[in-house]
Amino acid sequence: MNKIVETTIEADPKLPIIRLTRDFAATPAQLLRAHTDPEIFVQWSGPDSLTNTIDYWDARTGGSWRYVARRGDEEYAFRGTFHEVGPERIVQTFTFEGQPEGVALETLWFEDLGDGRTRLHAQSLVDSFEGRDAWLRSGMEVGVNEGYAKLERLATEHKI
Amino acid sequence: MNKIVETTIEADPKLPIIRLTRDFAATPAQLLRAHTDPEIFVQWSGPDSLTNTIDYWDARTGGSWRYVARRGDEEYAFRGTFHEVGPERIVQTFTFEGQPEGVALETLWFEDLGDGRTRLHAQSLVDSFEGRDAWLRSGMEVGVNEGYAKLERLATEHKI
Repeated sequence: MNKIVETTIEADPKLPIIRLTRDFAATPAQLLRAHTDPEIFVQWSGPDSLTNTIDYWDARTGGSWRYVARRGDEEYAFRGTFHEVGPERIVQTFTFEGQPEGVALETLWFEDLGDGRTRLHAQSLVDSFEGRDAWLRSGMEVGVNEGYAKLERLATEHKI
Repeated sequence: MNKIVETTIEADPKLPIIRLTRDFAATPAQLLRAHTDPEIFVQWSGPDSLTNTIDYWDARTGGSWRYVARRGDEEYAFRGTFHEVGPERIVQTFTFEGQPEGVALETLWFEDLGDGRTRLHAQSLVDSFEGRDAWLRSGMEVGVNEGYAKLERLATEHKI
């Protein structure tokens, strides 16, 4: 029987921030690769029912990215810039093109737990509590949990 | 005698945001150019005592930028990405390299007041109130006010 590993999803009480935390059977370098190598990224990000296609992807400090997630005729496009891509952390902007006014500033870092395990910290900062809370109510935890389960599987199958 | 036009600098009480507002004798298109054309930008941004030099500057959605401000032997470098550059607004990231951990998400928009006047709105979002308030206490209003006075002068002298 598989142990279900849930992601901790926290809304900061004082700041318009969502924080995700999840432990992986992967090294920090593997998690960095999973977030920067487009061929790996498309295999795990988002819910199982969507298929990702990269439009453009330049995972360097100062680069930019865009991908499209599809389910049948449905299309959801996401885009942003990479403000910083380093071994310690990734800082990037994020917009869902269906809501082009909204921009999140995302910071990801990888806490080495030893023994090939790493805690992923992902922080999303937006400019209103209303926007943050609407996102939390949108069912985003399905994509987060299914996505991270795929990422964990890629790591344990040595595909990262 | 010149009328001194001050910039309104507001700290949001609930959000880690600084908002700048200032009226200019310029059109929205001129203000957009002043923020995207590097040859114009270096002439006005920041306090009078610093001289700006562009390192790189690609003011398109998905582009990135870096410039260095110098006073004698002192050097202050700033860099970021352009998340969105459009006629309606500019969304960009901002880091002062002397404090590389800090990243602000900046949104600028240009409210047409008619008669060749425009209200500039600039919002800086960061991920802590401490960081926001330290920035407010840093004397940043000198650079803001002196910079915007130069921008106003460029507009009235038809140099934008």
